Amino acid sequence: MKFNNQNVNVSAKAKIGSNVRIGDNSVIYDNVEIGDNSIICNDSVIGEPLAGYYRDPNYVNPPSVIGPNSVIRSHSIIYANCRIGAEFNSGHRVTIRENCVIGEHCSIGTLSDLEGDITIGDYCRLHSNVHISQTSSMGNFVWMYPFSVMTNDPYPPSYDIRGGYIGDYTQVCVHAIILAGVHVGKNCLIGANAVVNRKVPDCSLAIGDPIKIVKDLRKYVVMGKGKPYPWMTRFDRGMPWQGIGFEVWARQQSERK
Amino acid sequence: MKFNNQNVNVSAKAKIGSNVRIGDNSVIYDNVEIGDNSIICNDSVIGEPLAGYYRDPNYVNPPSVIGPNSVIRSHSIIYANCRIGAEFNSGHRVTIRENCVIGEHCSIGTLSDLEGDITIGDYCRLHSNVHISQTSSMGNFVWMYPFSVMTNDPYPPSYDIRGGYIGDYTQVCVHAIILAGVHVGKNCLIGANAVVNRKVPDCSLAIGDPIKIVKDLRKYVVMGKGKPYPWMTRFDRGMPWQGIGFEVWARQQSERK
Amino acid sequence: MKFNNQNVNVSAKAKIGSNVRIGDNSVIYDNVEIGDNSIICNDSVIGEPLAGYYRDPNYVNPPSVIGPNSVIRSHSIIYANCRIGAEFNSGHRVTIRENCVIGEHCSIGTLSDLEGDITIGDYCRLHSNVHISQTSSMGNFVWMYPFSVMTNDPYPPSYDIRGGYIGDYTQVCVHAIILAGVHVGKNCLIGANAVVNRKVPDCSLAIGDPIKIVKDLRKYVVMGKGKPYPWMTRFDRGMPWQGIGFEVWARQQSERK
Repeated sequence: MKFNNQNVNVSAKAKIGSNVRIGDNSVIYDNVEIGDNSIICNDSVIGEPLAGYYRDPNYVNPPSVIGPNSVIRSHSIIYANCRIGAEFNSGHRVTIRENCVIGEHCSIGTLSDLEGDITIGDYCRLHSNVHISQTSSMGNFVWMYPFSVMTNDPYPPSYDIRGGYIGDYTQVCVHAIILAGVHVGKNCLIGANAVVNRKVPDCSLAIGDPIKIVKDLRKYVVMGKGKPYPWMTRFDRGMPWQGIGFEVWARQQSERK
Repeated sequence: MKFNNQNVNVSAKAKIGSNVRIGDNSVIYDNVEIGDNSIICNDSVIGEPLAGYYRDPNYVNPPSVIGPNSVIRSHSIIYANCRIGAEFNSGHRVTIRENCVIGEHCSIGTLSDLEGDITIGDYCRLHSNVHISQTSSMGNFVWMYPFSVMTNDPYPPSYDIRGGYIGDYTQVCVHAIILAGVHVGKNCLIGANAVVNRKVPDCSLAIGDPIKIVKDLRKYVVMGKGKPYPWMTRFDRGMPWQGIGFEVWARQQSERK
Repeated sequence: MKFNNQNVNVSAKAKIGSNVRIGDNSVIYDNVEIGDNSIICNDSVIGEPLAGYYRDPNYVNPPSVIGPNSVIRSHSIIYANCRIGAEFNSGHRVTIRENCVIGEHCSIGTLSDLEGDITIGDYCRLHSNVHISQTSSMGNFVWMYPFSVMTNDPYPPSYDIRGGYIGDYTQVCVHAIILAGVHVGKNCLIGANAVVNRKVPDCSLAIGDPIKIVKDLRKYVVMGKGKPYPWMTRFDRGMPWQGIGFEVWARQQSERK
């Protein structure tokens, strides 16, 4: 019932892979390429044109790619000139502005808002309602939770825009704020409601407003649970080390290099 | 002009009550039951299928119920397998994932996001942009304000998911965070921006990050206003004690038991 | 491809200016007036009827005005009885409830939610995901950043609703909260995550929860950057002093009076 080809608008200049399903009321603009076996749910917009579209009769939509085996949930909007890897998963009402590069196996939750010019690695998970400002970037296996935000303007409003960076495996809890231009290392845990106003070294636990670096995260003990971080040895759902364990996978990765 | 039966898609397996109106571009999926006199505004989706829908040709949509006299405002998405009581009211762009049970006379504001497996009592009011994570629950007459959030993962990411609980009559102010598994008592006031990292006894005022239990809320005095809490004796709009007063109503309730 | 006149619903009682384009699946209700050269993108709703519409067969939609040269991005909802000035710009999925008055050259970002009965001056910029509660107001050239919020209830829930006020040129950073009825002066900077629980004098830097007034903002020094505030002498994009400088423009303004 979702795919009735009702009120669907697919540009003749879009390239739709095999076994792709497109929901009712969705629009695929010019020069969008959608990989095989992907599902675009209803009321979505892929390849949303940039501002020039409204003014310039000769406007050409820049190309966009959605990788194979992706699922875009309903009411999502992905602008032109984005490159998104395979196995992408979006929640509902996601907004991804132009010039974003997103790796493979990523998931962007309901209502999240990527403001454009953003680089995201592989296997990142942005939950609902994450806001990422322009020129921000992150490595691989980064998770961000609801209402967390990366900002980009150190003394607003200014022309000095510089997004922050979040390193591999780092967890950014609900309501945390990464201020403009700040570098967060690998394997960190940024606490709920933390305001990250300065560089965070690898393997840190950072909490508070402004943050205090409480301790080496590897020494952080949860009563009755031992040392939960790094998390990769105790959690593998959807991760490339699922079934084989993080250490085996990591060794394979380093041997491959 | 809202109900033109234009681009509407109602499953033959849905059960639509009498005097129900369904807005343009809305979809009602299989096995949804909508109570009498309800209004489903435009661009809404009721009974959104679960993940199996996309993979399993034999997928059967689990049943959902929207109680009578409800109003679902436009662009809202309610998944299958939800049970919502009478007189329900939603804002715009609400997301309610699968397996939610919501009582009678509840209201969920614009952009609020219920992530599934959530239990909500009667007469609860979630304002705009409230985020409730899976397995969270709350009693009756709970109010939550914008950007407040209930989380469910004590050391993310983990398999140890456990939502919190909020007791009857409690007010959770803007930007407050209820951390995973935390029990908030009845008749509490959780301040703006509070981070609730531990159990809150009944009738507490809890503020700060992390919270301090400041005092017995019944002793809290607002200059020139007396003691505003418990609030039920001074506020009755839309409440079952409207017109008769909270004490009379409460006595009637306890006599009924 | 955006303007195919497909599934568009424009009331015969709406007044559409010349050279207005209306996207697919959009609805323009009774008594809406849209200024010349404006663009209403797809899936938008302008003049959303008030609650009486659902109950009163004699309901008349109160008039709304969108000024000329405006761009409303897709999936936005603007209620009836709003008056919005020229050159208005909205992001996606903006919600503007009834009885809002918004000046000229304003911009309201993706997912922002104006709850109604709000007054906003000229040249204001609300970024993504700003929440403004009823009866709030602000002057001109106010900027608010994601997840910032103006509340209106000093001891919720109450009947004592009173929105706050933000003065000209003030910047309200991410996640900042302006509590009910609070007056924020002109030319202030409200820090990220600040909780503004009392009056803020003109030209203040206010940070923390609850706020501390740290210093006269004009004396605030950023290493290697000098004194960035007031910001108007170093930033002019889209501002009326663009090209001529703030001081020349300000002098012109005062001579005009």
